[in-house]
Amino acid sequence: MRMYDIIEKKKRGGVLSREEIAWMIQGFVRGEIPDYQMSAMLMAIYFQGMEDGEITDLTLEMAHSGDMVDLSTIKGVKVDKHSTGGVGDKTTLIAGPLAAACGVKVAKMSGRGLGHTGGTVDKLESIPGFRTEIGREEFFQIVEDHGIAVIGQSGNLVPADKKLYALRDVTATVDSIPLIASSIMSKKLAAGSDGIVLDVKTGSGAFMKDPASSRALAEKMVAIGRQAGKRCCALITNMDVPLGHAVGNALEMREAIETLMGRGPADLVRVSTELAALMVWLGDIDGRSEGNAGQRDAGLDRAREQVMEALSTGAGLKVLADMVKAQGGDPQCVREPDRLAIGQERLEVKAPSDGFMGHMDTEAVGIASVLLGAGRNCKEDALDYGAGIVLKKKYGEAVRAGETIAVLYASEKERLAPAAEKFLSACTVQRERPNEEPLIYELVR
Amino acid sequence: MRMYDIIEKKKRGGVLSREEIAWMIQGFVRGEIPDYQMSAMLMAIYFQGMEDGEITDLTLEMAHSGDMVDLSTIKGVKVDKHSTGGVGDKTTLIAGPLAAACGVKVAKMSGRGLGHTGGTVDKLESIPGFRTEIGREEFFQIVEDHGIAVIGQSGNLVPADKKLYALRDVTATVDSIPLIASSIMSKKLAAGSDGIVLDVKTGSGAFMKDPASSRALAEKMVAIGRQAGKRCCALITNMDVPLGHAVGNALEMREAIETLMGRGPADLVRVSTELAALMVWLGDIDGRSEGNAGQRDAGLDRAREQVMEALSTGAGLKVLADMVKAQGGDPQCVREPDRLAIGQERLEVKAPSDGFMGHMDTEAVGIASVLLGAGRNCKEDALDYGAGIVLKKKYGEAVRAGETIAVLYASEKERLAPAAEKFLSACTVQRERPNEEPLIYELVR
Repeated sequence: MRMYDIIEKKKRGGVLSREEIAWMIQGFVRGEIPDYQMSAMLMAIYFQGMEDGEITDLTLEMAHSGDMVDLSTIKGVKVDKHSTGGVGDKTTLIAGPLAAACGVKVAKMSGRGLGHTGGTVDKLESIPGFRTEIGREEFFQIVEDHGIAVIGQSGNLVPADKKLYALRDVTATVDSIPLIASSIMSKKLAAGSDGIVLDVKTGSGAFMKDPASSRALAEKMVAIGRQAGKRCCALITNMDVPLGHAVGNALEMREAIETLMGRGPADLVRVSTELAALMVWLGDIDGRSEGNAGQRDAGLDRAREQVMEALSTGAGLKVLADMVKAQGGDPQCVREPDRLAIGQERLEVKAPSDGFMGHMDTEAVGIASVLLGAGRNCKEDALDYGAGIVLKKKYGEAVRAGETIAVLYASEKERLAPAAEKFLSACTVQRERPNEEPLIYELVR
Repeated sequence: MRMYDIIEKKKRGGVLSREEIAWMIQGFVRGEIPDYQMSAMLMAIYFQGMEDGEITDLTLEMAHSGDMVDLSTIKGVKVDKHSTGGVGDKTTLIAGPLAAACGVKVAKMSGRGLGHTGGTVDKLESIPGFRTEIGREEFFQIVEDHGIAVIGQSGNLVPADKKLYALRDVTATVDSIPLIASSIMSKKLAAGSDGIVLDVKTGSGAFMKDPASSRALAEKMVAIGRQAGKRCCALITNMDVPLGHAVGNALEMREAIETLMGRGPADLVRVSTELAALMVWLGDIDGRSEGNAGQRDAGLDRAREQVMEALSTGAGLKVLADMVKAQGGDPQCVREPDRLAIGQERLEVKAPSDGFMGHMDTEAVGIASVLLGAGRNCKEDALDYGAGIVLKKKYGEAVRAGETIAVLYASEKERLAPAAEKFLSACTVQRERPNEEPLIYELVR
């Protein structure tokens, strides 16, 4: 086989065989296929797309390029959850403990934040002492004991994706549905869970800017998961405004804990509990995701009730506290979230005029939080866990000129002004109350 | 500027500005833009194309990436000729001397053969002693004295094209009209002539397989030439069968000389004299390519007459002999072409059945000649000047089973059988006489 011929085939719209995909991915990971040929292939895939069978073959080949985690020694049904990334998205910290409280096992390997989106591992590390680098055996034991553990992605998980993603990132080939779907699903398959709940974000703070392309991505990923023998579903949710009020690591950790205490903002509660219910439903403790449509819907409704109960009784909060303790973190922070340190330098951002909060460029809000120190521009950047933004007014709310619409937090005073400028540029205040937008668009299953 | 943004712009179908193209080409030549970004850009150009202004900007930027030859010290109008490449294409060796005999100055820098197509420099080097590496001053002097000189392309002519072509060649991005047009025209512009006659080949032995895509390429190249202030026209000619009978360096040199002696095959005479007439016409010795359409046509007719006279009087042959002598070659070979050595090992290929010679896969004929030793698979391969093929029967001719349709020549006997097999696979013998095909499709001016 020659890489030239495979590029030419895809360029002409051909369908790559499983053998061609295997040869290409293995050769690329071994360094035998140079970056300049792979980047031409990635651009050809951007334009010509891939058929479902090709995407599945690509995903499986990528998944098998490194370690495949075997979770079979952990009792029960293991369900994973993945978000395509957003601003203020702390749902894993809420949905994970709630699902675990309902009996599902959550052995979660999570990423760090990069660019305008945050990462679950960073948020957890804002808890003093919390360890995210944990050996396999201890990881499994914590999942067994408490139903959930969250660690950083291990070194040799899907090396093909690491190498491909680095190349896509510099060759303008990130925004291709087959490449996004295979990147995400290869990591989920390698991580070894039985079920996968995907939270596909849509809107100005998400990678997919409109519900139609989000649905297309969701459908591809669910199809791949099914073909790989996994239980899989996707929820398409709004990321046209940040989720909840907090953006930034310790601020989001605080908000997640408050939510598990029953005091969360409505949008965050709604999305997190729905994701938890889907995890419980896929976990299929009593066969509730099987059967005919009516039986499946009834199963999902029962899962929702169970999750709401875990929220109201504080069972989810207890699971989080137990996990934090098991992973070396200070469990007192889960009882008293105000113990989590936040930035001493603060700036209130005021509404420029009377009116209603309108559309928000949520990606720009994420960038403002990076300017405050809450995120990374490149992998090597250090984080300021206490930095971030708390929104006081969100989409659709009435404001008066001079009223505080957000508070910015940082450790260094000089970071506040540029972040405030960026934040304000992302906001609009309009005369008319804007139309309501859906929070959850659709369930793809 | 960031290469990422320029790739993204082209990927989305945007039009690159002159500044963006200049920054990109200069950065690539200096090695500051990595191959993996440029190959993604090349694939994006393949899919999105380029507007005429963009192609011209790209071509000019490439042309200026190295030396720009200044021919102004040579008296008269300098006219260049370029072929997009074919099998048995020795027209430069005929049209060049004929045009020079009519008063045009031909300062030609020519390439070597690669793959299934031959190169003019290789053909001339089959003459004992002939030098194609000549200093600039001597080169100019020979053009001044004899009207024509042909040398190899100098080291620093269009380095941007060398680097881009090497990348296109391994990333399946050769067959893009904007990239082909800018590659060819950047070299022609850097070579410094006042006029450029393009021979755009079409058919199974050419890069462009059909007349429509050949016309599209021809129109782009003529437009670029005009915008760069050159006189420029293109002839679209048939390369569905090899031109003339000979394929291989010494064999083609022999055939070119025979043609200048007035004994050439009809197709070769026709294409070569038309190209020569276009060179004379563009050379515009008495304003014949100016004026209204009727005046221009009349000017072209006069140029044709002048070229036919140079052929019949032997004036073209004399120019070739003078040039060969001036460039160190044995001029006796031009008087007695049989002095040019050809392969001692020979094999006659026989017709497999009665019928008519039909369609020929001319690229495969070129590959058969490479198998005999007449061409190169990679730049480092040595040539056997005496190797090649002489066609005895061409498209449309009647044959009987067992009749010789071609003779293969090589220095090594073991090369004959595989080449014969390849050659036969390229031929078809059919029951019905095939339809005649045009030899010259169109003049684009």
